[in-house]
Amino acid sequence: MGRGRPRKMDPETVLDIAMKVFWDKGFDGTSMSDLVCETGMAKPGLYACFGDKESLYKKSLSHYYNNLGTPLIDELRNSKDPLKVSVRRFLKTVAHSMLDNSHPSGCFVVNSLVQGASQRPAMEAIGRKFDQNRRNTFIDVFKKAQQKGDLPPEADAKALAEFFSAQSLALGVLGSSNATKETLSSFVDVAMTALPE
Amino acid sequence: MGRGRPRKMDPETVLDIAMKVFWDKGFDGTSMSDLVCETGMAKPGLYACFGDKESLYKKSLSHYYNNLGTPLIDELRNSKDPLKVSVRRFLKTVAHSMLDNSHPSGCFVVNSLVQGASQRPAMEAIGRKFDQNRRNTFIDVFKKAQQKGDLPPEADAKALAEFFSAQSLALGVLGSSNATKETLSSFVDVAMTALPE
Repeated sequence: MGRGRPRKMDPETVLDIAMKVFWDKGFDGTSMSDLVCETGMAKPGLYACFGDKESLYKKSLSHYYNNLGTPLIDELRNSKDPLKVSVRRFLKTVAHSMLDNSHPSGCFVVNSLVQGASQRPAMEAIGRKFDQNRRNTFIDVFKKAQQKGDLPPEADAKALAEFFSAQSLALGVLGSSNATKETLSSFVDVAMTALPE
Repeated sequence: MGRGRPRKMDPETVLDIAMKVFWDKGFDGTSMSDLVCETGMAKPGLYACFGDKESLYKKSLSHYYNNLGTPLIDELRNSKDPLKVSVRRFLKTVAHSMLDNSHPSGCFVVNSLVQGASQRPAMEAIGRKFDQNRRNTFIDVFKKAQQKGDLPPEADAKALAEFFSAQSLALGVLGSSNATKETLSSFVDVAMTALPE
């Protein structure tokens, strides 16, 4: 990350850096000076391109979701595999990403949901939108699976969907508390036993 | 909460107020002025009694854990009920506390685990200690249950313990995202199906 004098960078690169700073330090723990230092952009340039700190936070969270959340959610939604296979793949991928040292630990969306969000309605809203989007996808996928006979007719598809969707929240906190690969892996294996045959 | 002129308060009451401020706003989102304003104590008195902001945060988190975490964990550890009954009671109590409007939403320990904790090792350590304490209790309880024949001999007691312990992390994030009573309740019901008969 650039710590030298201000230089021109493409917006995606700046958002990638800002995303990692906010993800690591949180909104309140990040100063504009941190962002200037990490991106290598001058403060007036940052403001001109991305707006104030709150605006840059929202753009960074969207950047995270578009790059790390959406592909995973789209894969779940569009999968032709049995429900058991696609849900396990989703959770295993989340668990695996918790061990990726190329970015901060945990999940930026989970962080945004718990980080004093009650104080800033606009920031709270964007984290909740992404959370709701994942939940809605799980509900759609589970309901369709039940229609296709991939879940027993007596199963509560919505409750199961909410449960499996929320396992990614637990994984996010486990990631933040540096859970081991073994812990994360067994966690997903146990979670999957809650899916009726 | 007192917003008038400085007055004398007993330390437990001050910690109770400080706990709610830090739980709601996070360490970085809380200023000493917030704490002065909410507790009604003058800043020199706060420093003299509780130390600096980091010290007051650690005392507030311990206050939370001693008052809201420990009783629940002790109940789980000392329960003579079947494992299924005591684990369900633990999770239902956590779920229920997520709907309690007399304190901030979510779980203060979960918040501390994800709130830019990598920045402050001493604060990170205390949240992790409480997290580890809950995990260890689950592991002890599940291993003893297996010895008593309350879990099948082929079950992976440690993996099951870690899974159920981590369900409280998911509940903490669900609480922060204002999940409904119905969502929290079904979540626990589905989680319990992962406990082998």
